[in-house]
Amino acid sequence: MDKKYSIKDIAQLSGVSVATVSRVINDNGRFSEETRKKVLKVIKETGYQTNFSAKNLRMNKSFSVGILVPDISNYFFATVVQKIEKILFKCGYSTIICNTARDEDKELAYLKMLESKGIDGLIVISGAKAFDINKVSSSSKIPFICIDRKPKDKKNTIFIASDHYQGALDATDSLFNSGSKHPIIATHKHYSSSGADRLRGFKDSLEKHGLPFDTSRNQITLTTENTTIKMEKVLKSQPEIDGIFAINDTVAIEVLSALLKLGKSVPNDIKLIGFDDEPQDKHTYPTLSSVKQDTDRIAQVAVENLIGLINSTGITSESIIIPVELMPRDSTL
Amino acid sequence: MDKKYSIKDIAQLSGVSVATVSRVINDNGRFSEETRKKVLKVIKETGYQTNFSAKNLRMNKSFSVGILVPDISNYFFATVVQKIEKILFKCGYSTIICNTARDEDKELAYLKMLESKGIDGLIVISGAKAFDINKVSSSSKIPFICIDRKPKDKKNTIFIASDHYQGALDATDSLFNSGSKHPIIATHKHYSSSGADRLRGFKDSLEKHGLPFDTSRNQITLTTENTTIKMEKVLKSQPEIDGIFAINDTVAIEVLSALLKLGKSVPNDIKLIGFDDEPQDKHTYPTLSSVKQDTDRIAQVAVENLIGLINSTGITSESIIIPVELMPRDSTL
Repeated sequence: MDKKYSIKDIAQLSGVSVATVSRVINDNGRFSEETRKKVLKVIKETGYQTNFSAKNLRMNKSFSVGILVPDISNYFFATVVQKIEKILFKCGYSTIICNTARDEDKELAYLKMLESKGIDGLIVISGAKAFDINKVSSSSKIPFICIDRKPKDKKNTIFIASDHYQGALDATDSLFNSGSKHPIIATHKHYSSSGADRLRGFKDSLEKHGLPFDTSRNQITLTTENTTIKMEKVLKSQPEIDGIFAINDTVAIEVLSALLKLGKSVPNDIKLIGFDDEPQDKHTYPTLSSVKQDTDRIAQVAVENLIGLINSTGITSESIIIPVELMPRDSTL
Repeated sequence: MDKKYSIKDIAQLSGVSVATVSRVINDNGRFSEETRKKVLKVIKETGYQTNFSAKNLRMNKSFSVGILVPDISNYFFATVVQKIEKILFKCGYSTIICNTARDEDKELAYLKMLESKGIDGLIVISGAKAFDINKVSSSSKIPFICIDRKPKDKKNTIFIASDHYQGALDATDSLFNSGSKHPIIATHKHYSSSGADRLRGFKDSLEKHGLPFDTSRNQITLTTENTTIKMEKVLKSQPEIDGIFAINDTVAIEVLSALLKLGKSVPNDIKLIGFDDEPQDKHTYPTLSSVKQDTDRIAQVAVENLIGLINSTGITSESIIIPVELMPRDSTL
């Protein structure tokens, strides 16, 4: 009995167009509160059930978008995903978030799952390798954009990223400017294209200041080894180290904690700067200098471009680089 | 051409059962590496496409589970969601994460979306009100469990939560034990059942120590108002305050930062303890005492119980309370 009403019937009974009923169902905002109440009343009275699969076929749209994210507990990823979700929802799209845990098999499984659920578009955030949508199926036509992750084939997508290179260059320059003469970079073990850009920025700042980059002398990588023990060894063999650019704030805060335990003063003995401008940077002791990514802009640009691709009005093979901002605090005074 | 092979054909060509092909496709682990390679080779050669919708009808399962979470940037939520995803994936299920941003309309929209995508089960984490699955459709039969959120109708679900009451009681007791005589509770503006239990624990510890709870004297709520200004006012009108139990670590770190700015020493002037044991607690100055939730256990119990409900072998109308652990650090010395 529930299924005998069509969207056309609901439109007729509500005295509005089919498109308006569709907008109310998808809650995409372009209708008055009065219209919404009227349509929802008719839907309730008739027991009309939105048949998403049927609608999908009819409109060729499911009004859902998938997001592949390597780690939702990462501040930058979580913030961008939440902002994207908020904007997409206002545009009438639901967001399906999949946490791939930096695991390629898992990523493939989630891609297949998202394809099977009939998503209209896909946002791919970071990850180990260049992203290749053809891994799912050679005939896949899902429009997608990449954030912080270079696509394998630039022709069919849009690449959006912060200016990681410039941010890292500015951060390292700021170590020199506050008096550091022998800065190093502290990284983690995960490879990412954004991380590679940040390393490049660090190297170029070093060269600009007359120091050729040498991995064995100018880079440390945090692993599962205790960070305090690691830092103790490094500072013993290279007591000249007086500045650290950390690849992100999580690494920076690990390093800061280790330095304090080793009796080092930040910024007096060693200047320290991170990347991402996490909220906790304001609450560490000393407060942590960092580089702020414009997550509002990234989310806005990502959604605009994806919807452009979905509606075939967008232009692909673009790279959009979003400026970053240096946030100096006490750790580089 | 791609669609002419059935799962039966794939099974026959691979020399295994239909169930094994299904397990390989869903990657649920109960097959050898050799079998996996054999089946995937046949799938590749035949160009067989997994028809998830057809499989869904045939097996009455989509091997996907939805999670409603109010805020993925919250440490506890993100950790639990990631751990649940990991276990579910090992069991052959994909996890669809939906961030509801504590918005009831959004929650309803995502519930409808998840229902339309044919999920096998649902995990609901926290949120403002008691959870009522009948909001989606009166005939909904999706098995679901609630974490940190009381279901409206306990008969059809399982409720899992940390022992928030005991954790708050222990945390407040620890303030008294370290010399505090006039502790208050600092809360945020979001209501949740876990928050209500923590408040109850605080009140009972107060009464145990001979102090009747009085909202106007023993509770402050952080709002959009600057926390330092707020704390300054509170400490001016109640200079006897010498201990603060914060409802979670985010609030605790806000308060800690404000106290330091006001020239107060923690723990000498004011003892402070939070809840959730976020990683940054080890990196604040002083290090922050907290209450640790057993996220491993919560995730394990949640998945086991949901799969039990999906396979109709589970028992509903249960409440499972997971013990917590006090993590004393320098802020309550």
